[in-house]
Formats: sequence, structure tokens, C-alpha cells
Amino acid sequence: MQDFSKGAAWMDGRIMPVAEAKIPVTHWGYRRSDVTYDVVGVWEGNFFRLDDHIRRFRASMARLRMDPGQSDDDIRDILHRVVAASGLRSAYVAMDCLRSVPPPGAARHPAHVPAYLICMALPWAWVAPPEMIARGVHLMIPQVRRIPPESFDPRVKNFHWGDLTEGQFEAEAAGADFAILLDADGNVTEGPGFNIFCIRDGRVVTPDRGALEGITRASVFELCGELGITVEIRPLPADEFRAADEIFAATTAGGIMPASRIDGRIMGNDRPGPLSMQIHDRFWKKRAEGWHATPVDYAPG
Amino acid sequence: MQDFSKGAAWMDGRIMPVAEAKIPVTHWGYRRSDVTYDVVGVWEGNFFRLDDHIRRFRASMARLRMDPGQSDDDIRDILHRVVAASGLRSAYVAMDCLRSVPPPGAARHPAHVPAYLICMALPWAWVAPPEMIARGVHLMIPQVRRIPPESFDPRVKNFHWGDLTEGQFEAEAAGADFAILLDADGNVTEGPGFNIFCIRDGRVVTPDRGALEGITRASVFELCGELGITVEIRPLPADEFRAADEIFAATTAGGIMPASRIDGRIMGNDRPGPLSMQIHDRFWKKRAEGWHATPVDYAPG
Repeated sequence: MQDFSKGAAWMDGRIMPVAEAKIPVTHWGYRRSDVTYDVVGVWEGNFFRLDDHIRRFRASMARLRMDPGQSDDDIRDILHRVVAASGLRSAYVAMDCLRSVPPPGAARHPAHVPAYLICMALPWAWVAPPEMIARGVHLMIPQVRRIPPESFDPRVKNFHWGDLTEGQFEAEAAGADFAILLDADGNVTEGPGFNIFCIRDGRVVTPDRGALEGITRASVFELCGELGITVEIRPLPADEFRAADEIFAATTAGGIMPASRIDGRIMGNDRPGPLSMQIHDRFWKKRAEGWHATPVDYAPG
Repeated sequence: MQDFSKGAAWMDGRIMPVAEAKIPVTHWGYRRSDVTYDVVGVWEGNFFRLDDHIRRFRASMARLRMDPGQSDDDIRDILHRVVAASGLRSAYVAMDCLRSVPPPGAARHPAHVPAYLICMALPWAWVAPPEMIARGVHLMIPQVRRIPPESFDPRVKNFHWGDLTEGQFEAEAAGADFAILLDADGNVTEGPGFNIFCIRDGRVVTPDRGALEGITRASVFELCGELGITVEIRPLPADEFRAADEIFAATTAGGIMPASRIDGRIMGNDRPGPLSMQIHDRFWKKRAEGWHATPVDYAPG
């Protein structure tokens, strides 16, 4: 009997417990972080914006000149199967495409190295746990700067997290929950695994470059449209960000995460701001109503 | 009978064929490229500058706040053992230190995630094969820029290779062997896995920042001292680099690699330059004489 309690994975054409899904240490997906990925959430039995995630994953693979051999329909089918195998009602569902090693005799060039797909469904884990969201996350701006688009396109979801990891150590030293990294020009980019927004005079502002084009970010734009809130997508200087009325983050593994502190400054009454909470509440209300939902097929053929 | 023909690895306290050394897909060493490594070469039964590599590896781990639990002596012993198990007389010997996953109940922060060691000895593979070194490598400067030190310290040897991989695709499109990346200021940094040097009017110039402080680079400084060649360690603008008399690269897995072309321009007579070859020849002559050599213990206790 296989143990799927920690999740299920698909690799090399078969479903397995996630603990069995392992990558050879020689593969370039690890050894050169030559990999792209995407993560779609399953909440109470429904994928959220499944096709949007597969579309972005395909674009990321194309940008890195990778073709794992599976079509979008194949990937969709595999994602249903890993969630079904895990039995999870709420899950973090990842799809990775990574390069292996050059075939015997081939030059050591990425163009000759086959790429392959790994999918997995893991128990849902909040980027920020509910109690942290309730009090508002505490943010800070570290010294380390985000890897610039001129070096790696942040719209290709990737594992180049050395800067974000360093930022998290700086955040810990400052007593904050999360680091928000600036670019070389001193503009806000993103945090570890989430997009960032601030609110000033009733308008939502989010960076136009240097960050992932998040699917939850796109959902925020949709919600703001419905709520009649103007969204500005433009460079966001650190000083403007620090002086904001409200700040919130958005991510697949956490939805809308309001902040209550930035660089030690207490915003509002040290609680999530009212507009942030309006967006947060509407996000989850609509999710419960089936917004952009695709029911997981728990008994796939 | 275990098959060590493709190399040997040490992981979780035991020696195994390298094909069995695998990393769980959930580990942050892969999933966040939260890893540092080093590579020491073994040539004809001798490590080259073994203690220098272990010293740099320890400094890299300290910088990333990692402690795998093994002392420098432990690591030295393990490296001898993997080479002995592989039976290889010439080998590429890697040591990785990577983070796993947060323990149950711990916050999802790198400070709480244990780091562990993997070592491996692989059959020697040239960065540039001998016939390519004989004709001189063909270099080009791509559009993509090297990840800056403000985002990740390049002196911490790392797998953030997305920029170098992209550069290699640009090199392929241009008909060149290797990309040499510039920094945001237009100065030369490094290539995929090697340091770079140019020679102008008999003086060797190499970048002072934005690149790994290579052990073979340090060996070049030593050789230049013996040969009475002046070395300048300073910013190296792309235009000066393109106009050089000679160019060569230096790496553990290739030694000294002279170039014959840069951005399509043919240097000298489309062959490795004379000073580059003098350094190249002296490097290998001294290696054969036991320079900085530590004999591999092929029958460890």
C-alpha cells in the first residue's frame, strides 16, 4: 500500500507518493536551476484558474526553449490525476519542467538536453498562516536587490531564489515576516512567492516590471474593476510604498495577504486595512461561489 | 554488484553509484536553488588545490548560513572516498550543500531548514574538449546580463545559471562556443563555469567583481607572477575586451582555455595566442610535476 498522505506526484509516466519523486543530482534542472514551473491551487475540490496556469506554464517553457512532450491537455489530465491520487480537497499543485543531462556524445549545451515534466499535489500550505493574515503581515525592505529582468525574465516562474532567501534572513533579523525586494532603481518588485500592492488615496498601485505576472495579481485587477477601485500598474518607488495607506500581497498559496507593518512603521491601527480586507473578503466569497473554478475529477478514467 | 562506471556519490552517510544520488523534488536546494557547491578536479590520481576548494566551500556555506554537520576533515575524507569508490584516475569531484524542507510545525523560513551534504566523483568532462582548446574557443557577448552581486554574491558558487543558459542559446545562434556576460555597467564578468582574462600589450586583465573568485584564476595569478607578466584586476569594459590581443578562460574542468574569436572577430591568426599558450603549457607542466597536488587515497581506511 502506497502512502499518499504527504501528496502524490507524476513522473516518468506514473503516479507515485511524492516522497518517491526525486531528481538525479546530476540533472541540470538542479545543477543549473534550468527549470521553470507553475503552481495552481485546489481549494475545496476546485482548481482556481487552471487553464490560466497551464497557459503561463507553456509560455515559460517556450521562453526557455523546453518541450517536455506533453500537450496542454496531457498536463491538465495529469494534474487531475495527481490531485485525485492524493485525495486532497485543498492542495498546492505544482508542475515543473526541467532539463536532464546531455545525451552521450552530445555537446554540453542546453539545446541538446531533453526537458521533462514532473507534477505534484501537496497538502495546502499557506505562505502566511491564517492567524498571520488576521493580524496583518509584517514587511520590510532588505538591502539585497531582486535579480533584474535583464538577467532573468521574472515572468518565467523560476527557482532563482537566492535573493529572496537572503531577503528572508534580513527580514528575520529585523523581526519581520517577509522581505519585499527593490530593483536596482529603488522600485518595489515582489516578495518571496507573491506580488505586492499598495493603496494610496483609494487607488491600488502595483509594479509594472521586475515581478511575476501573477494569476492572483490578475484576479486582484478583476476584483478592483468590480469594486470600482482604480489600479495603477507602474514603477512603485520605495518611499511611496513605505508611506502607503495600506499594503497587501497576492499569491496562489495564500490569496490576498494584507499587511499591517512596513519597515517597522505601523499602518492604520496595526491591523489589515479596510480596502485590503474588502478585496480579501470578496476574493474568498467569489472563490466559494465557484469563480474561475474547475472541479477536480477525483475518479479519472 | 553496484555499477560505479558513471561515478560515485556520498549521501546520507553512505557511498552509492552516482545514478542513485537523488534529491526529493520538494527540497529547497532544488525548489529555491537554495544550495552552494564547489568542484575540485582530480587529474591522474591527484586532487588540485584540494584545501583551497574546501576552504572556499566552507566560506560559501557560511555566507548562506548553512552547516551540514561535517567538518572540513570529514569533507576531505568523503571526497577521497568517492573518488576511490569510482576508481577514476581523472574526475570532476563536486561537493553540494543544500537545504531540505522545514521540519513539521516549523515556519516556512530558511533559518529553520536543515542543510545537508552530497559529494560525488564523476568522470572528467572538459568544459571545452581538447580539439576546441587546440583551435581556440569562439566567444561572444550576448544581450543577457550577469546576475549582479547586489542580488547574489557570485563569490558564493551557485546554480543560478538562468542568465548563463540564456547566454549559451545566444552563443549558439551566433555560431560561437561560449557566451561571456557583461554586468549592468557593460563590464565583462564571466562565462558559463569559467573566469575570463584578456591580454593587451603583454599585460593580463581580469574583472575585479561580478564573477567567482576561481581557484584556477588564482593559479593564473601565480603563473603570471612566475612568468613576469603583470596582472591587472579591475573593471574590464566590453570594448577593451573585444579589442584585446588575446583572450583566455580558466576553470577547474578545463584548466586554461585560449580563445581565437570574439564576437566574430578573429584574433591573431585564428589560433590561441602565444602568451595564453605559454600560461596554458606552464599550467599543465606544473600539474604533471605535482603542483598543489594531493594524491588520492585509493584505499581509504
